[in-house]
Amino acid sequence: MGEYKVLEIKKSVFENNDREADILREQLKGDKTFLLNLMSSPGSGKTTTLKRTIAALKDEYKIGVMEADIDSEVDAKTISETGVKAIQLHTGGMCHLDAGMTKQGLEGIAADQFDFVVLENVGNLVCPAEFDTGASKNAMILSVPEGDDKPLKYPLMFSICDCVLINKIDTKSVFDFDDDAVVERIKRLNPKAEIFFISAKTGEGMEGWFNWLRNQINEWNK
Amino acid sequence: MGEYKVLEIKKSVFENNDREADILREQLKGDKTFLLNLMSSPGSGKTTTLKRTIAALKDEYKIGVMEADIDSEVDAKTISETGVKAIQLHTGGMCHLDAGMTKQGLEGIAADQFDFVVLENVGNLVCPAEFDTGASKNAMILSVPEGDDKPLKYPLMFSICDCVLINKIDTKSVFDFDDDAVVERIKRLNPKAEIFFISAKTGEGMEGWFNWLRNQINEWNK
Repeated sequence: MGEYKVLEIKKSVFENNDREADILREQLKGDKTFLLNLMSSPGSGKTTTLKRTIAALKDEYKIGVMEADIDSEVDAKTISETGVKAIQLHTGGMCHLDAGMTKQGLEGIAADQFDFVVLENVGNLVCPAEFDTGASKNAMILSVPEGDDKPLKYPLMFSICDCVLINKIDTKSVFDFDDDAVVERIKRLNPKAEIFFISAKTGEGMEGWFNWLRNQINEWNK
Repeated sequence: MGEYKVLEIKKSVFENNDREADILREQLKGDKTFLLNLMSSPGSGKTTTLKRTIAALKDEYKIGVMEADIDSEVDAKTISETGVKAIQLHTGGMCHLDAGMTKQGLEGIAADQFDFVVLENVGNLVCPAEFDTGASKNAMILSVPEGDDKPLKYPLMFSICDCVLINKIDTKSVFDFDDDAVVERIKRLNPKAEIFFISAKTGEGMEGWFNWLRNQINEWNK
């Protein structure tokens, strides 16, 4: 517990990222490893959400976590303290991960030993949305302090995510945030998106997210 | 008042961005136009900070604002309501502006008529830090809800900014945020950075920022 390694990943050499992503997804399917690509702005609460999620699911699944960051090892250290295997991916300045980079991370953590692997992508609402990582499903976090207008400004991110978590609902008293407006804006971009209102800090509202994940993992790995 | 135009800017064709940025800076100096490049994560409060700043300085300077976003016209509309000239730059999916793109925006707003032009960059703590826009000075906003660990994770952004605003200090009661730690982390990366703690919502602490701007503008335009 509390151990992790740091992997310096290299820029991908594959010209056709979409094809590379499809190959990776097939491989994950064959290995019965569900890969979740988790995206958000910096500071939306990805790591705190992950800690709660790991605590809820770690007796049911073998979980591994890949923490992608430009620099620092803060997140891998935090996650490794939950008792699951974590690896820190340093992207060497790159603002996103593509399928080739994700593959390096999966090899680094020996992903085929896990039922459920999370890729915590670089904190960025723009670039990660443009590159298919090969993940089984994409999820994102929007936090209340960021504002309910974000689907208008970063539409691609909201369009490509299977699940949107609205985090930090415990701080609503100090922000103007319109729940109905944000749901309407997300659904207009992406009618099939699952949306859960949560507080990763207090745990409020997280059971729906855990159940959504259980369904996705069980479906993928059956 | 309340009018703005939308400009679709094209990917820059210049191979040497640093040289293009230097040329643009010389031109701005000659025109006595101070250009501030304002950067932050999505939802840190760039637009609200700008509104307060415009209200404080618009009797002293002729101000123009360029709002860069991947999509939407939310910000240009908001800024144009303050009575200054605003233009919305659509980046066509690009996650940052470089000098060539900034130049297109400056031409679109006819920047030489202004003393002070603000470029509100795309909400992103990663990519905009990598491209010199040609601005006179760089400033960034980190908001309390994002957390005091952000200088560890996005060091380049904090390194290249002349001024760092710590915004949303009115929400401190609901977040764990260590003022001393964030200052120490910023100063370690960038000893010369000016740091101001503000609330763009309440106006608290903004006078220092206004004075810093006055000094920069007056120095540049003399």
